Amino acid sequence: MALIVQKYGGTSVGNVERIQGVAQKVKGFREQGHDVIVVVSAMSGETNRLIGMANEISQRPVPREMDVLVSTGEQVTIALLAMALTERGCAAKSYTGGQVRIHTDSAHTKARIQAVDDENMHADLKAGRVVIVAGFQGMDDNNNITTLGRGGSDTTAVALAAALKADECQIYTDVDGVYTTDPRVVEAARRLSKITFEEMLEMASLGSKILQIRSVEFAGKYNVPLRVLSTFEDGPGTLITTEELDSMEQPVISGIAFNRDEAKLTLLGVPDVPGVAAKILAPIGAKNIEVDMIVQNVGADQTTDFTFTVHRNDVESAHEVLEGVATDLGARDVRKDSKICKVSVVGVGMRSHAGVASQMFETLAAEGINIQMISTSEIKISVVVDEKYLELAVRALHQAFDLAAEDAN
Amino acid sequence: MALIVQKYGGTSVGNVERIQGVAQKVKGFREQGHDVIVVVSAMSGETNRLIGMANEISQRPVPREMDVLVSTGEQVTIALLAMALTERGCAAKSYTGGQVRIHTDSAHTKARIQAVDDENMHADLKAGRVVIVAGFQGMDDNNNITTLGRGGSDTTAVALAAALKADECQIYTDVDGVYTTDPRVVEAARRLSKITFEEMLEMASLGSKILQIRSVEFAGKYNVPLRVLSTFEDGPGTLITTEELDSMEQPVISGIAFNRDEAKLTLLGVPDVPGVAAKILAPIGAKNIEVDMIVQNVGADQTTDFTFTVHRNDVESAHEVLEGVATDLGARDVRKDSKICKVSVVGVGMRSHAGVASQMFETLAAEGINIQMISTSEIKISVVVDEKYLELAVRALHQAFDLAAEDAN
Repeated sequence: MALIVQKYGGTSVGNVERIQGVAQKVKGFREQGHDVIVVVSAMSGETNRLIGMANEISQRPVPREMDVLVSTGEQVTIALLAMALTERGCAAKSYTGGQVRIHTDSAHTKARIQAVDDENMHADLKAGRVVIVAGFQGMDDNNNITTLGRGGSDTTAVALAAALKADECQIYTDVDGVYTTDPRVVEAARRLSKITFEEMLEMASLGSKILQIRSVEFAGKYNVPLRVLSTFEDGPGTLITTEELDSMEQPVISGIAFNRDEAKLTLLGVPDVPGVAAKILAPIGAKNIEVDMIVQNVGADQTTDFTFTVHRNDVESAHEVLEGVATDLGARDVRKDSKICKVSVVGVGMRSHAGVASQMFETLAAEGINIQMISTSEIKISVVVDEKYLELAVRALHQAFDLAAEDAN
Repeated sequence: MALIVQKYGGTSVGNVERIQGVAQKVKGFREQGHDVIVVVSAMSGETNRLIGMANEISQRPVPREMDVLVSTGEQVTIALLAMALTERGCAAKSYTGGQVRIHTDSAHTKARIQAVDDENMHADLKAGRVVIVAGFQGMDDNNNITTLGRGGSDTTAVALAAALKADECQIYTDVDGVYTTDPRVVEAARRLSKITFEEMLEMASLGSKILQIRSVEFAGKYNVPLRVLSTFEDGPGTLITTEELDSMEQPVISGIAFNRDEAKLTLLGVPDVPGVAAKILAPIGAKNIEVDMIVQNVGADQTTDFTFTVHRNDVESAHEVLEGVATDLGARDVRKDSKICKVSVVGVGMRSHAGVASQMFETLAAEGINIQMISTSEIKISVVVDEKYLELAVRALHQAFDLAAEDAN
């Protein structure tokens, strides 16, 4: 008898038949005596269909209306799943984000959850109902519909699990767990039975795409046990946990992450004086553009070059902002490059092992891959390279760090 | 400078291009200085697509969830129209039924509007914004999404016009007005420039399908001037008004309505005692099934036959209810017949002219059409005949009452 929050993504609810499969699965959990809250995404393809219509109308559709539009995708799924459960004799009730209510700020299309009302959900669970919640959406203080940005359904699931103090938050997806790297790139990639929140955070943010980064942050912060598992096959999946393995068992590197969604922007010849970085990044932040890697080198002639990466979708707006900044700062030039990729090695074991960086750089050098940017954290090392080297780099690193070997636990 | 409520149906917003056409039209009204509230339906085909998915899951989907599902159709349209207006430099804001808020009772899939909050809409109009409202939907006291039943967007428009004391409520559709009868059946059918609420009520309820009956009732009750006109062609349309023309000009009959959506149910040999009709109809009403015509004849042997019509979609549930009632009352048999149609002549002029009924029955007799049921009101006479005679009956009556002649005003 546990309280479980389950999240089913777009592929898992991709058509009516699959929704019925999810209903069957949820019913199974109810029959084992568990209380179940189900968070669902839009049926796969639906969000893109809606965005496609908006883009026919406007290149930059009003964000408020974009949220009104795309939030319908999840609303369709909750209704169909509630029907499918009821049809199977399993009492269920659907909630939109606004009905829950999931309070968010007013940053349309990328809102953040501020609070979750759990009263109604508790009442439904007590009455023996499965609670079905539309992922990815909420409502601001003025009753405007908001969305959390793409992939935000995971965040909804974790937020509900935290608010209701659920025993486990299960993220059902089309893969059966978290792998050492993408198996489509490296055939020998292996499923991890456990991974720490910190590692998962680095893996997710670097493009492993199984879980949305914000959901992992949230889960770590509120200590919600998170499990990634497959909708279509039975299996234990991968548990994301706060426990670290002891150092005997701990592999140095847990996985290789990569990301081809970024673009690089460089301001050449900016004055090398205090406060410049802030002057460059403040207007970028003001446009709600998220910056990932930032590199500034020691320069010559009292000037320096300043480079950072943003999501490729944001590269044009960021470039526009930088043109203005460049004039203000008297910079020499602004350059943008979308043909890059980021490759990272991640592992908490890195903390106690020297030499990971040199092994990584040597491996890449041996393949003739030039490194354009480097950035490090306590448990990861990322490099930016030409996107044409992506697969080569990942395969070489996977082998160099011996990741295909058996799971230690 | 007037306050106009406009309603655009599913065909008028059937694709992105048409939504842009509506935006252009609305912008034109704004430029003339009018305040505009726009009510929209789901894009044509969308509601059926959603219902289709629900029916794949369940033959009788939970009504509450049905409303959560189908209400997404209008929500998509309001967002797209708001984007299209903003793109044209015309400030606009969308509202779902729940956001307005349109208060309804809790009769899911056929809810009734109880009140409309006009505060936010007034503020938007004052700020120079076009207000866009999702038709067909509202919210009950427990924050459940409700829908008004199909075609309910007209009702939403009239309810808003009444609440905001609008100068005119314009219903845009794919026809350019109200005709003496369906031009697809009678080529010589003629557009009416004016029609009274009473007549329109009879025309709508009898299947003219241009306007939803409840919206006409509402408009008459709150004295909202209603105009039916085409989205795709300019023209004056048909004004629905409280004024009656003076008797010199008043035609005896304004139009011929018909309906093939009904089915006939008969209880044979029920006891001919007081209270029987109520015993038959109360359980039908309890199932939220609407009854249209009711006929009971003088019987023999202390028993009588009781016949009524319902919508064809309800015939199976009604029949089920009647089986129980038949046993309780000791009736001889229950019969159902879906192969019927109803044909009606409508006109306020009927009040001052005798002989309309006999002219109607003679016309039908001359064509060899057998009349199964007759029902009359002050301004209409309806008959039920075998559905195979529908076109023949309508054409014969249109000619007999000389409806192709020029409009009197």
